[in-house]
Amino acid sequence: MATPVKVYGPPISTAVSRVLACILEKDVQFQLIPVNMSKGEHKKPDFLKIQPFGQVPAFQDDNISLFESRAICRYICEKYADKGNKGLYGTNPLARASIDQWLEAEGQSFNPPSSALVFQLAFAPRMKLKQDQVVIKQNEEKLRKVLDIYEKRLGDSQFLAGDEFSLADLSHLPNSHYLMSAADTRDLFTSRKNVERWWDEISSRDSWKKVVELHKSP
Amino acid sequence: MATPVKVYGPPISTAVSRVLACILEKDVQFQLIPVNMSKGEHKKPDFLKIQPFGQVPAFQDDNISLFESRAICRYICEKYADKGNKGLYGTNPLARASIDQWLEAEGQSFNPPSSALVFQLAFAPRMKLKQDQVVIKQNEEKLRKVLDIYEKRLGDSQFLAGDEFSLADLSHLPNSHYLMSAADTRDLFTSRKNVERWWDEISSRDSWKKVVELHKSP
Repeated sequence: MATPVKVYGPPISTAVSRVLACILEKDVQFQLIPVNMSKGEHKKPDFLKIQPFGQVPAFQDDNISLFESRAICRYICEKYADKGNKGLYGTNPLARASIDQWLEAEGQSFNPPSSALVFQLAFAPRMKLKQDQVVIKQNEEKLRKVLDIYEKRLGDSQFLAGDEFSLADLSHLPNSHYLMSAADTRDLFTSRKNVERWWDEISSRDSWKKVVELHKSP
Repeated sequence: MATPVKVYGPPISTAVSRVLACILEKDVQFQLIPVNMSKGEHKKPDFLKIQPFGQVPAFQDDNISLFESRAICRYICEKYADKGNKGLYGTNPLARASIDQWLEAEGQSFNPPSSALVFQLAFAPRMKLKQDQVVIKQNEEKLRKVLDIYEKRLGDSQFLAGDEFSLADLSHLPNSHYLMSAADTRDLFTSRKNVERWWDEISSRDSWKKVVELHKSP
């Protein structure tokens, strides 16, 4: 049996969830290694050797150690091309270019406002921090503009990069999951019929349901 | 002769510069198509058809239209694999994974503070906008932390992803170019000896010198 890949970090982290969703789509064996962030384990020298920014996740496979969730996902798709969902990162150069384009749109346009909102709405209360209403309003406005563009795109094609589910869609799952749990931000999705249809499709995949189960692990 | 690829947008834009640097490294013929942003041409319906976010650059090749500078660079490296700098996006899966990792670090960690600073220090004065000193201080602090990590990394290897110049380094050129023109942010680079050595190497490439020349075109 192949040695499982190692993922360091708590599944409730959005970036860890992104990597886990990819691993589960690709049907790759993995080992989840806890990093106790409330004890600051992600800032300790041993961890900084594999993740110099002191963030999660870190990732290890046979002869490579990686950080940055979207780079890890690309690596998994390349290394395990013949396993699981073979079309996740495209099967030809044009499909891959479209996936890269929408994966970058996620990283550059969707992620900044949505991760600010996830922190304010989901994590600040758990950490007993006061929510910043100005930050919430500003980022809701930014996210609204991004979702208007998605609404149009998802009227033209079933998924962001084309008519197949891809890494570009998958990369939106973790932040969207938390945003769907808060009334105000849930409405940003459900008030747009193509975005809502897309969310229903991508969040009902077995891979994502398993990630959500992992969120409940201690 | 092959049909040149088309790049829409002004060369002084950091994202346009990123794509131009890649095209010049790969020795690909290109045609630069002006987009007059002061007249709002990037928000007009015809342009939004190829760049739905209303940003620059947009890019066209034979049978594909793309946006997002880092996705365009990846496409150019794949499509024109046999031209120009053949190692720019790695020549084996491990090298590519390392390049993707540091390209994501640029997009997620270096770009947010550095592009905020470039706007405040380089573009706000041209647009006769008041500089926001709080934003400047906050982002200098964020960038300082990122460059501390780069300083350590660049003590271990000649370039970010390894011992060859790659797309990961290239992607840092446009923002760094502007930051090197302002005294306070220049010091962030020159006070770190490995970062300074790296900047001197990457900014002296012919491809980048040609991009800087294009900045001067009307």
